[in-house]
Amino acid sequence: MVPLPSEFRLAVVQLHVTSVKSENLSRTRTLVKEAAQQGSKLVLLPECFNSPYGTNFFSEYSEKIPGESTRLLSETAKENKVYVVGGSIPEEDGGKFYNSCTVFGPDGEMILKHRKIHLFDIDVPGKIRFQESETLTPGNTLSMFETPFCKVGVGICYDMRFAELAQLYGRKGCHLLVYPGAFNMTTGPAHWELLQRARALDNQVYVATASPARDETASYVAWGHSSVVNPWGEVMTKAGAQETVIYADIDLQYLSDVRQQIPITSQRRHDIYEVSCVKETESS
Amino acid sequence: MVPLPSEFRLAVVQLHVTSVKSENLSRTRTLVKEAAQQGSKLVLLPECFNSPYGTNFFSEYSEKIPGESTRLLSETAKENKVYVVGGSIPEEDGGKFYNSCTVFGPDGEMILKHRKIHLFDIDVPGKIRFQESETLTPGNTLSMFETPFCKVGVGICYDMRFAELAQLYGRKGCHLLVYPGAFNMTTGPAHWELLQRARALDNQVYVATASPARDETASYVAWGHSSVVNPWGEVMTKAGAQETVIYADIDLQYLSDVRQQIPITSQRRHDIYEVSCVKETESS
Repeated sequence: MVPLPSEFRLAVVQLHVTSVKSENLSRTRTLVKEAAQQGSKLVLLPECFNSPYGTNFFSEYSEKIPGESTRLLSETAKENKVYVVGGSIPEEDGGKFYNSCTVFGPDGEMILKHRKIHLFDIDVPGKIRFQESETLTPGNTLSMFETPFCKVGVGICYDMRFAELAQLYGRKGCHLLVYPGAFNMTTGPAHWELLQRARALDNQVYVATASPARDETASYVAWGHSSVVNPWGEVMTKAGAQETVIYADIDLQYLSDVRQQIPITSQRRHDIYEVSCVKETESS
Repeated sequence: MVPLPSEFRLAVVQLHVTSVKSENLSRTRTLVKEAAQQGSKLVLLPECFNSPYGTNFFSEYSEKIPGESTRLLSETAKENKVYVVGGSIPEEDGGKFYNSCTVFGPDGEMILKHRKIHLFDIDVPGKIRFQESETLTPGNTLSMFETPFCKVGVGICYDMRFAELAQLYGRKGCHLLVYPGAFNMTTGPAHWELLQRARALDNQVYVATASPARDETASYVAWGHSSVVNPWGEVMTKAGAQETVIYADIDLQYLSDVRQQIPITSQRRHDIYEVSCVKETESS
């Protein structure tokens, strides 16, 4: 047996998403390849990487799975021998639409599909109103996948606001949580980094987020600032607003050290409270 | 019926705690009076407000409840017609020691006792080692109390690291969480503010923390920086390192607005996960 490596490189692609799907896909192919050439083993793409974000776009850009965009992800994963967490695409299935993240292994096989379980319904007067639930149907399961490096939990954007999901992923052995997301110019500066650091610190895990690059001309302007946070709650690396690829070396020995130093994972009072799965079906 | 006010003033006393108990008590009396004169309805004191913080001090400074320090709290609450959340004191009961927070109503009656349920056992090599569990016994219950303004949940210091406690308080209707605490010069800059903001944002509640003032000559140097955070996750007011009283106007209408704008409290997926009490006994 070859010993499991305690470190691996993660890349986050903060893609500049346009209204031209073919451009989004070809940029994705180029940037995943670039990330792999830098030694990355897992590459994370943003929410709606193939489509502008917006309830009015979901239907037009939606695809079956498998379909054009997920085939591209599969090929790209295989060509570069990396795990690709394919952000999300608008998925059509049986006349319903979902915000779905697909994950591909280095052999090109799809190993996970996560449908966003919390639909983004926000109404901050004078700032932003957005109601995903007018168009989309939510998923109903936790979504985790195994890699040779660690187990990974997946959420999409608004899923990150719900601490329980991260807590369950942590309890179930995930050491990395990934959230493709597209926070906006109101919630981005207020909450994007705070939520990531909170999930990382409370569960003593790594957290990575991938946003589309900011496009001031889009109807929904994404905050950008894709990040990776370590289990101490520190931001390891953070993008600005523009298209870029950021990298972080995930160190599972460091995670283990943090858990020993501040032993909250072993000191929880399971005799007083519990976070539990109501439904044990899951995509993992 | 007089309508419930939607706002009330909260004061946090960042007390300079010394090794002279009588001084700690008389300063407490003075500063609670000052806070009441500024219109505060609820005054929060720091962890170990009557004693230096340290396992070697707990026995010497410990008291029965009621005892000298809690009698002072009762009198001070009554004299000033305020709620006093009495930080904590080392409590002795039946030969065991606890880190205990007592709460007194404006009539001077003790309405709650919270014994710290998570004992602080930390070991960051070269930085800090501290093992409360070598000396103290943990409490075993949630602790909430009602006021005419809102319901309040109580935790002590390390209790704040455990998100479940705050989640349960939130589910049970608390709109304000108070954490007397004494983070140190390692965990303070790293995690003190992050944890408060996380608890506030994730549960859309107000969070107040009270630290002792920093004393560089003490064996355990507290970080200070007592704070109040609003349900949007913003720091409303924050002390520096020195003795001071800080104030915040808690606005329950604002809390309600935040919950409407980002409706996470109503969008939780109770069909997928649940945070629950294993033991329903509680101090409230």
